[in-house]
Amino acid sequence: MKRRDFLTKSMGVTAAMALPFSATAVSSENSWDREYDLIIVGSGFAGLAAAYSANKAGLKNILILEKMETWGGNSAICGGIACMPNTSLQKKHGIEDSAELMIKDMVKAGRGFNHPELCKTLATEAHTVYDMLIGCGVEFMDKIIRLGGHSAPRAHIPANASGGGIVVPMHKYLVNKGVQFQNRTQVTSLLRDKNNAITGVAVQEKFDFETEEFKAEQTYKSRHGVVVATGGWGQDKKFVKTTMPIYAHLEATAHPGATAGMIKSLLAVGSLPIMLDMYQLGPWASPDEKGAGPASFFADYSFSEGIAIDPMTGKRFMNELADRRTRAEAQLVVLEKGSEEKPNYPFTFCSEATTKRAEGFKGAYRDGAVNKSNSVAELAKHHGVDEAVLSQSIADWNEIVEGKPDPFNKPLDRRTELKPPFYSLRLSPKLHYCMGGVAITPNAEVIDATTCEPIKGLFAAGEVAGGTHGMDRLGGCSSVDGLVFGQIAGRTAANYKANA
Amino acid sequence: MKRRDFLTKSMGVTAAMALPFSATAVSSENSWDREYDLIIVGSGFAGLAAAYSANKAGLKNILILEKMETWGGNSAICGGIACMPNTSLQKKHGIEDSAELMIKDMVKAGRGFNHPELCKTLATEAHTVYDMLIGCGVEFMDKIIRLGGHSAPRAHIPANASGGGIVVPMHKYLVNKGVQFQNRTQVTSLLRDKNNAITGVAVQEKFDFETEEFKAEQTYKSRHGVVVATGGWGQDKKFVKTTMPIYAHLEATAHPGATAGMIKSLLAVGSLPIMLDMYQLGPWASPDEKGAGPASFFADYSFSEGIAIDPMTGKRFMNELADRRTRAEAQLVVLEKGSEEKPNYPFTFCSEATTKRAEGFKGAYRDGAVNKSNSVAELAKHHGVDEAVLSQSIADWNEIVEGKPDPFNKPLDRRTELKPPFYSLRLSPKLHYCMGGVAITPNAEVIDATTCEPIKGLFAAGEVAGGTHGMDRLGGCSSVDGLVFGQIAGRTAANYKANA
Repeated sequence: MKRRDFLTKSMGVTAAMALPFSATAVSSENSWDREYDLIIVGSGFAGLAAAYSANKAGLKNILILEKMETWGGNSAICGGIACMPNTSLQKKHGIEDSAELMIKDMVKAGRGFNHPELCKTLATEAHTVYDMLIGCGVEFMDKIIRLGGHSAPRAHIPANASGGGIVVPMHKYLVNKGVQFQNRTQVTSLLRDKNNAITGVAVQEKFDFETEEFKAEQTYKSRHGVVVATGGWGQDKKFVKTTMPIYAHLEATAHPGATAGMIKSLLAVGSLPIMLDMYQLGPWASPDEKGAGPASFFADYSFSEGIAIDPMTGKRFMNELADRRTRAEAQLVVLEKGSEEKPNYPFTFCSEATTKRAEGFKGAYRDGAVNKSNSVAELAKHHGVDEAVLSQSIADWNEIVEGKPDPFNKPLDRRTELKPPFYSLRLSPKLHYCMGGVAITPNAEVIDATTCEPIKGLFAAGEVAGGTHGMDRLGGCSSVDGLVFGQIAGRTAANYKANA
Repeated sequence: MKRRDFLTKSMGVTAAMALPFSATAVSSENSWDREYDLIIVGSGFAGLAAAYSANKAGLKNILILEKMETWGGNSAICGGIACMPNTSLQKKHGIEDSAELMIKDMVKAGRGFNHPELCKTLATEAHTVYDMLIGCGVEFMDKIIRLGGHSAPRAHIPANASGGGIVVPMHKYLVNKGVQFQNRTQVTSLLRDKNNAITGVAVQEKFDFETEEFKAEQTYKSRHGVVVATGGWGQDKKFVKTTMPIYAHLEATAHPGATAGMIKSLLAVGSLPIMLDMYQLGPWASPDEKGAGPASFFADYSFSEGIAIDPMTGKRFMNELADRRTRAEAQLVVLEKGSEEKPNYPFTFCSEATTKRAEGFKGAYRDGAVNKSNSVAELAKHHGVDEAVLSQSIADWNEIVEGKPDPFNKPLDRRTELKPPFYSLRLSPKLHYCMGGVAITPNAEVIDATTCEPIKGLFAAGEVAGGTHGMDRLGGCSSVDGLVFGQIAGRTAANYKANA
């Protein structure tokens, strides 16, 4: 393994306060292994959008680095639903909506922690993302649906109902434009010049199948700064534990590459981190499947028409359609009553009629996450609940279905009697999204913790940046976040002149 | 101004990821201007308690650095009330309480964001703080009261009802023990050795009255690491704006020295910051006095027996006794309806009977923050409210006083009819406490963002550390926080051996 050829140097400093930062590793001007106009780290929505706009703005030699084997990270495996007001498709369907209305929805979900300018930027520029995607050859279903917490139908669904329906055409479009993609390459640190401007990255290329050796660490120069678009760190147990100890034991829905390497590299160059302790939990997650699979789709229908029960009491314990944070926290309280020897998984169940409508039911039932019970007795036995109390809970619910007020005030769009056979699913919230990250300006510039001003040459977009959504976010908003701020980051980087 | 005599040096590194951090300024072994066993930065509750326990543990040459002219920071100007379960005084008064009960209260107020081990440490060790204070000559009133949000009376009040009643005797005690105090000295950075252990501080001593010159920057070595106990940064507008933009315009209750210098220095050596965006707002604050003066005491009584009104609607807009966050947020909504030309300050008012009981009333009335109105018409005119609507709001409230249910569910311990003359106070929430800070272990060791393990030789206690209280804290808990973790930090530092 060859030595790095950039050295730490002694240097003059002006402000005493800044000394420990200013005197960090600087990249030698003559030592680059490779040079690019722009390096983008991460190949999900944010990284792809950054390449798109940087290319549009005239940059030629653009490189997207991806540490995994495959492209797209979580963007490729998510549902790809994007909530965008004021698109031509939304107008075609005659839907009344506005950026202002979306901002209101986002701030409500974010409990007021949203950084207003970021939130406004997302809602205002979302429609330009739609045009970009259409231009890249992405196809959407010819309908707009309404997701929970949104005041208007504004969810656009890729034709194949998957984030891959965005990642694949964008990748193809960008390759045609000459954007270079390099996978299995991990950025190990961000490099700075003596003015503290980010000038490139140190990378560790992975095992070389030709020589059968690990490649040496290398340095890549990026003339227009570096765009970091590396997503969240839900799979980094230690970082989650340190920032939010009570979530340390939770499984995450993210792909295995979602670790904290780049947020740490961003901190190491002095970025200001915000909301590192705020994580979104998925309340539709099951301990009986990996990540968020078909069972999580089934859960949404069971929540809507069935009920959820605390095994220890045999009773309902939440409004099954409350917002994600409220429901996940209620489930954690139920779970905490259990022990390792005698766990107390809350569960949701519904009647057969509901399963006919429920996406994900077939897969979840086939995989064994959903269980069928032919009677209350069977259901009670399967989940370790007192049968008499469970019977009463079902009877109580059926009275609500018939019109009695619900003490939990769940909105009932469809009234379905609960009767055997029952289909049930155990619940356990999973980490779904890192709300926090580095603070950025509306131009996607990363903010320095010491100066509270942008760090020269450092841009961030998507889940690795914090603040846009505040404490919790609505569905269909992370894709738009990555695409909007990715687009902006590419544009800002293209306009950025090093040493200016 | 003489040059610093420590230099940045080139050095080997083991992990590529860690390079930008590892290669920061190192302190030369031979260049110290002064040497101490232990340096503590900040002379408030946390700093004093750290000196106390370090001295008890046998350290001799202890220095407390204070950047201001006077000792104690916010600790000296606060009410000094300390909520501590299981003290001998609490037992003497026959009060049933427990650490577990206090933890439950704290987690409720903290919205579950509390780091459990820190919260547990505070509640469990609080009673040892009481013994320490008594040992230092602090006198408490012979009564225990119950503050809002606490499930039991556990608030201990210094005999003079001020934090000065703790700071002054502790300072005297420590001086007698040989602890050195140095004021007007600002720490400009934390210094590290080549193993990244904190070994001392660079300081800027202030203007020298003898030579009439500014002193040169100096370096002080600390053999047992450095304890940072510098409090919050509510007066640092730029840092507040960057971390929580919507609070940027709010005044703060903190003393003028409460800036972000040391949190930035902590970040500069790689500390992991959490909850930087979480600030506690005081809902009892008035725009018509500086900080939190007598008007804020009066407000508590007016909230309890009177009501609060939104001038634009003429109606009540909150449960006047809800928790601090809920009330402050409700007031911000009211304020946001106004404009610079036509502000819309919510106001609270009560009858004369209430003012007889209200601490702070005389001072606030004398200073002009509280206004007297002899009729509803006068009150309406003074606050720019429609008189008819205000009359109705008063009539509605008087029905609640007589037993009608309150739509806001305010608990009514005392029923006092609202009738002229009225005494009113304009409201505007102020930043009161920085919930966030660096992440620490229960041993008060500061956690490194990259390794998620303790940084060698770096300890933090009090408001500059985050996590103990979660998103919001109860009254009477910040003093205990500083004292408990200060005590622990001093102990941990005494046991810490550099280069071990």
